[in-house]
Amino acid sequence: MITLKQAKTIIEAAEAKATSIGQPMNIAVADEGGNLIAHVRMDGAWIGSIDISIKKAYTSRAFDISTKDLAEHSQSGGQFFGIHASNNGKIMVFAGGIPLRHAGKVVGAIGVSGGNAPQDGQTAGAAGTRKSYWEQP
Amino acid sequence: MITLKQAKTIIEAAEAKATSIGQPMNIAVADEGGNLIAHVRMDGAWIGSIDISIKKAYTSRAFDISTKDLAEHSQSGGQFFGIHASNNGKIMVFAGGIPLRHAGKVVGAIGVSGGNAPQDGQTAGAAGTRKSYWEQP
Amino acid sequence: MITLKQAKTIIEAAEAKATSIGQPMNIAVADEGGNLIAHVRMDGAWIGSIDISIKKAYTSRAFDISTKDLAEHSQSGGQFFGIHASNNGKIMVFAGGIPLRHAGKVVGAIGVSGGNAPQDGQTAGAAGTRKSYWEQP
Amino acid sequence: MITLKQAKTIIEAAEAKATSIGQPMNIAVADEGGNLIAHVRMDGAWIGSIDISIKKAYTSRAFDISTKDLAEHSQSGGQFFGIHASNNGKIMVFAGGIPLRHAGKVVGAIGVSGGNAPQDGQTAGAAGTRKSYWEQP
Repeated sequence: MITLKQAKTIIEAAEAKATSIGQPMNIAVADEGGNLIAHVRMDGAWIGSIDISIKKAYTSRAFDISTKDLAEHSQSGGQFFGIHASNNGKIMVFAGGIPLRHAGKVVGAIGVSGGNAPQDGQTAGAAGTRKSYWEQP
Repeated sequence: MITLKQAKTIIEAAEAKATSIGQPMNIAVADEGGNLIAHVRMDGAWIGSIDISIKKAYTSRAFDISTKDLAEHSQSGGQFFGIHASNNGKIMVFAGGIPLRHAGKVVGAIGVSGGNAPQDGQTAGAAGTRKSYWEQP
Repeated sequence: MITLKQAKTIIEAAEAKATSIGQPMNIAVADEGGNLIAHVRMDGAWIGSIDISIKKAYTSRAFDISTKDLAEHSQSGGQFFGIHASNNGKIMVFAGGIPLRHAGKVVGAIGVSGGNAPQDGQTAGAAGTRKSYWEQP
Repeated sequence: MITLKQAKTIIEAAEAKATSIGQPMNIAVADEGGNLIAHVRMDGAWIGSIDISIKKAYTSRAFDISTKDLAEHSQSGGQFFGIHASNNGKIMVFAGGIPLRHAGKVVGAIGVSGGNAPQDGQTAGAAGTRKSYWEQP
């Protein structure tokens, strides 16, 4: 279980990365149930990305996959094309959502939105020790 | 304009109050446009209140009124009965949302959800210097 | 058929009234099909009332009735209680919506939101020659 | 902050352009928070475009980008494919929405809908001094 304290630590790591690349971001952390634990919108970050960051976190936990990886299967012609129409509009199929794991199990996810796809993915990734994984200290 | 730093300070004040009354809460801060700046769900707080806290903040800014005061006019027979059906389900008509003011102007709002009405209102109120008002330090 | 030019004239009349009572308003005019012709939000008017003004206009045309009159039947215990849940959330059951008539026939409606019920109703009424009626010059 | 008076001036410029190309349009202006300031539907313009014009204005402000540019990244295979499923259906990914800037900062947006993509974009563009920019007089 991710505590609020841990979620804040994860968000701070993402904030630091976003600051270092000069791109203000929306950052959200969801729990094992896919439910939001915490969200921040950095000063100057897009208001349209509030919703997207929260939904990227949901999506990553909903399918235990990074939204970047999900994106590969969700384009027209792909095996999951149309998945973005499920879950009452809560599914985001572009980079920035990453599952958070502990002891080999997905315990939540982070969602980042505010820049281009590489920037979003990079910022989300910085919040964990490596892509798609986050281990508690 | 409320900065993220200020929003975090407001949220921390509400967290401290929630802790002191022993009731974990969801706390959200919205900006002048009604858009979310930050949200936290304290450990053990209701997942159904994530959405409510965000919408209480929106509602308070949307009508420059505390949701407690709005509630008085929104019951059956009241002048605003039915307002909860507007704004695509974003209007909450029970205590816990309070406008944040600076220099006499509403610049955003706080929304709190997780306990009974007095607890929600009390926690939101603690984030300002007095009911319905918040002045920047 | 109400033209855009006529809709603007109606809105200007409502704006003048709102100014005279010192309460900034959202004002919307819908056509015979209930579809929006024009909307304005006066400086300082509530952002939550954008949606409400548009929906009051829709509601008034949808049932050829002022929303003030509809309100009387839509409270708990009334013959239309629950009507606010119909039409995908587009029905507003409090004062501020008034049908616009020409040659005895409803040709559209005005919706006003931004103050208390009497203010909203008064402002909408000022846009016609008398309550619930508007005749082309 | 865009005033209602300024929004009307912007809309009139768009109306003039729409008239000159012989294509009636829906035109909307949103503020810094993405909230509607004013909307007009020119006589004969599509009723389906009421909603689209309002949402194009929201989208342009939500991501500080023209919807024409956003469209390029939002097709199948693009880095933002699926973004149209976010923000509860408020994201439009085709031409006609343009951010309005003042002193280098996005302060709102215009949304136009009623013709083909070039016509919509052209009409929105005419409301500013140059593509994607609008400076207060």
